[in-house]
Amino acid sequence: MKTAIAQINPVIGDFEYNFSRIKHYADKAKAHSCDMVVFSELVISGYPPRDLLEKKDFIEANLSCLSRLVDEIRGIGVICGFVDRNPVDEGKPLYNSAVLFENGKILHRVNKRLLPTYDVFDESRYFEAGTECTPYGYKGEKIGITICEDVWNDKDIFQKRIYHINPVDLMIKGGASLLVNISASPFHVGKKEFRWDLFGAIARKYKVPLIFANQVGGNDSILFDGMSAAFDKDGKIRALARDFEEDIIFYDSDEQTGMTYEENIHKVSGSDVESVLKALIMGTRDYVVKCGFSKVVLGLSGGIDSALTAFIAAKALGSENVLSVFMPSGYTSVDNFEDTKKLAGNIGIGFEVIPVDGVFKEFIRLLSPSFREGEPDITEQNIQARIRGTILMALSNRQGRLLLSTGNKSELAVGYCTLYGDMNGGLAVISDIPKTEVYGLARFINREEEIIPARIIEKAPSAELKPDQTDQDDLPPYEILDSILKGYIEDLKGAGELVKSGFDPKLVEDVISRVDRNEYKRHQAAPGLKVTTKAFGYGRRYPLAQRYTQSIYKK
Amino acid sequence: MKTAIAQINPVIGDFEYNFSRIKHYADKAKAHSCDMVVFSELVISGYPPRDLLEKKDFIEANLSCLSRLVDEIRGIGVICGFVDRNPVDEGKPLYNSAVLFENGKILHRVNKRLLPTYDVFDESRYFEAGTECTPYGYKGEKIGITICEDVWNDKDIFQKRIYHINPVDLMIKGGASLLVNISASPFHVGKKEFRWDLFGAIARKYKVPLIFANQVGGNDSILFDGMSAAFDKDGKIRALARDFEEDIIFYDSDEQTGMTYEENIHKVSGSDVESVLKALIMGTRDYVVKCGFSKVVLGLSGGIDSALTAFIAAKALGSENVLSVFMPSGYTSVDNFEDTKKLAGNIGIGFEVIPVDGVFKEFIRLLSPSFREGEPDITEQNIQARIRGTILMALSNRQGRLLLSTGNKSELAVGYCTLYGDMNGGLAVISDIPKTEVYGLARFINREEEIIPARIIEKAPSAELKPDQTDQDDLPPYEILDSILKGYIEDLKGAGELVKSGFDPKLVEDVISRVDRNEYKRHQAAPGLKVTTKAFGYGRRYPLAQRYTQSIYKK
Repeated sequence: MKTAIAQINPVIGDFEYNFSRIKHYADKAKAHSCDMVVFSELVISGYPPRDLLEKKDFIEANLSCLSRLVDEIRGIGVICGFVDRNPVDEGKPLYNSAVLFENGKILHRVNKRLLPTYDVFDESRYFEAGTECTPYGYKGEKIGITICEDVWNDKDIFQKRIYHINPVDLMIKGGASLLVNISASPFHVGKKEFRWDLFGAIARKYKVPLIFANQVGGNDSILFDGMSAAFDKDGKIRALARDFEEDIIFYDSDEQTGMTYEENIHKVSGSDVESVLKALIMGTRDYVVKCGFSKVVLGLSGGIDSALTAFIAAKALGSENVLSVFMPSGYTSVDNFEDTKKLAGNIGIGFEVIPVDGVFKEFIRLLSPSFREGEPDITEQNIQARIRGTILMALSNRQGRLLLSTGNKSELAVGYCTLYGDMNGGLAVISDIPKTEVYGLARFINREEEIIPARIIEKAPSAELKPDQTDQDDLPPYEILDSILKGYIEDLKGAGELVKSGFDPKLVEDVISRVDRNEYKRHQAAPGLKVTTKAFGYGRRYPLAQRYTQSIYKK
Repeated sequence: MKTAIAQINPVIGDFEYNFSRIKHYADKAKAHSCDMVVFSELVISGYPPRDLLEKKDFIEANLSCLSRLVDEIRGIGVICGFVDRNPVDEGKPLYNSAVLFENGKILHRVNKRLLPTYDVFDESRYFEAGTECTPYGYKGEKIGITICEDVWNDKDIFQKRIYHINPVDLMIKGGASLLVNISASPFHVGKKEFRWDLFGAIARKYKVPLIFANQVGGNDSILFDGMSAAFDKDGKIRALARDFEEDIIFYDSDEQTGMTYEENIHKVSGSDVESVLKALIMGTRDYVVKCGFSKVVLGLSGGIDSALTAFIAAKALGSENVLSVFMPSGYTSVDNFEDTKKLAGNIGIGFEVIPVDGVFKEFIRLLSPSFREGEPDITEQNIQARIRGTILMALSNRQGRLLLSTGNKSELAVGYCTLYGDMNGGLAVISDIPKTEVYGLARFINREEEIIPARIIEKAPSAELKPDQTDQDDLPPYEILDSILKGYIEDLKGAGELVKSGFDPKLVEDVISRVDRNEYKRHQAAPGLKVTTKAFGYGRRYPLAQRYTQSIYKK
């Protein structure tokens, strides 16, 4: 059987648009004489629809879109994901489902059995778990359809399994000759290799080919990398779709002799840094465009974070759609003006200079009676950041540009940023990139020519909110800070474990109490693009009013 | 058996503090010669601990707190909630558990079977569902212990049941003579009556007494009203704890003759408006104090929203801890100055006046080259709101005061508020109160004397960001707006249903598309205090980049 795997970038809730993308790729598959075309999980609504799933009319719109597809796509079998109603008046009201249809008829339905409910996933919030795993005989194959998480519970791969059944096992016991997994499997660094290991091992273990159809595109924070693939019964990749863009690939399950389909193995990123850069560009484009914007604005400080963000924005939206604003104060070095101007020129984006000292002085004059006694402190620094934030939002409002914020993960973690100031923005492009990796991305961008001026990469990081300030006045060196943060945030290590692994106890206490204390800032942060196993935002849910860290150190 | 029900206000993660509260109430129960004392769900950690549950050391700290309680409370049986580890290497790693201990020994353990995963609840994210319901023989009773949601699946009460079993049924089949339900059951308007109906019906149906031990206090957005109670086997309330404060009550299950324990039926709020006001006062106090603050600041505009918020803050924290700031511009009426001054005097809070025109003019001078052509629009209005937001944050930073934001639910719903402006704050006190109900609360506050000046209640609402502006220039009358919003947000009605129920189609389209378009503002809003069945924030999770509403109206 000749199968097409179509990896599309749906817009959540835009059933008309998603219909047209599905139809377009089904036609392509037919043009390649395919027997069947496979689309991703919940492709009709886009994944994740979240609480839109609680709207009855949303579910109806999704079902009527499916009906139209069933009616209008003829002459090819189609597997795709949709939201089904639970017909029984007990349990959750919906299923996360897949359907196989052909020539106006639904031949087979499957409900997802393993419902991920961790990190960014909330599937138990909406869906009842399926209870059956039965392969379906179609065009000489017995197709075992699973949905995303259903294939992620193999006891040979996962030491600690969070589910009690393995749908793949059950499909094979039912006689499946071809496994089809439709997914909305998000990107993070290292995920690709793990997926390939997992899917290859499953195909080899059961000696059946496995087809993996993944969603591509960004939906808010969650970035889907695509890379749909077909694994033959020896676990070898026979077809591979591009990363971070729509694509279609083909696989012939009758060809047992190892025909390689080289033309179907499309080029994907060769390194983690390349993947991350592509992910951020795709995520920025999709967020801006799916929100109905085409133009953006951002502040350029002369530092590396805003330089990287500007480059990503220009790649995502076209440099003509990016306006950068340099907002110097008395603490701003001349270097920074030159560097930002050069950067804006190199990437071809708009550039304005708006100095903030006049407004700042007026604020201080106004507030000094209320400040009464006391030396300048963080208050004055925050006022500068908030003036800049207000200027950027004014340009955003007046010119209809979405504001991008430019903070990195390290500073967001320890709260080295100003709420309602530099945190302003509709999207926090690099908020899941630790400072040390910001440098890696900048060097990658400069690998062939100097796009980001070298001085931006080399200078000591500074917020320039008081005289001669550098980040290292207030923070440990970024190499150390980022290691502690990775341990605490991504690996969920406690203070004790971090100290055991060699970090200074005082430093560990300082860093993790800063992380905890600044939860309130992140609660009000713009959504960021997730590229690690644990990003701030939707997948990391901490109480604000709590005293866990403080209470440890009190003892 | 004589049972004490202790309703405490734990601080999440402060095991030392929670230990001391539990010990204190256990001692009280002993002093009343009780056989047993019952505490609420997860009382050791506080509910909800959210992703703190993913920290190994947090789980350990909770278990060692339990061990200390088991060691140190002697001479009385204790039932309390805690987080247990799942000893099996399959399934979720934790249980939401209850324990009965006495004189250094754990006698009985129970794991929660029904795990709420909807609205603000995420229990399937962390917990494996329990699999057993066995009552435990203790001091002449067979005690059937259930945890919160476990009693919320009775088929006679819930037409649509989201779970497949009823633990209460199973406990009764196992011979339970006394039902004990430990809970962290949040407040919303109407919940009290529903709970009483439900618990009364269960007790009557099975002819056994039911003891309900609830958490009290605010944890971020979620407000627990307490009102722990004992229902006799006829479903009659024999003991009732206060609402919105810690309390202890007593129930003797041997007294079958209907001894009334009048002294145990404590006074609770007599009306919804009284409940809501108490809830907001408790929620404000708990958020501020549990975050480590004692003082707050807020802006007073002369309007009813900020007046109500100021009153709540003063009741919550003492008027000496509240600073109010009036920030007039050229568009501000003289009435508003007089009214705010009078209000601040009536409730005895600090009052400062900081005019914003100087800074505003400086911003406009600075930005006019970038604005180029074009009449003043929403941009200039937002700048004023952001100047005010910056002033308030400066006072917050310099004086260590938590900033309270004052927006109501109606304006937050349709985005009639400025992000990084009047939305600034650590807590949005009345963000779950529709504008029409703001008036009801103000009138309730004024029921005996004029605390909120009458003119504040009577004047037409206005943002005062341009000449002669009133809210009704931009919004439908609040009675109509609030009805549509309740239908759309709380009752999840679609556009079609709303039109069918009599609203103008154009108006419905306008309101619901505003609600959807402004999701991005609410994403960055301060946490608010939840008092309705559906508040913005944690329990309402919509994608930002989506086109559902737009796509309906495109067709």
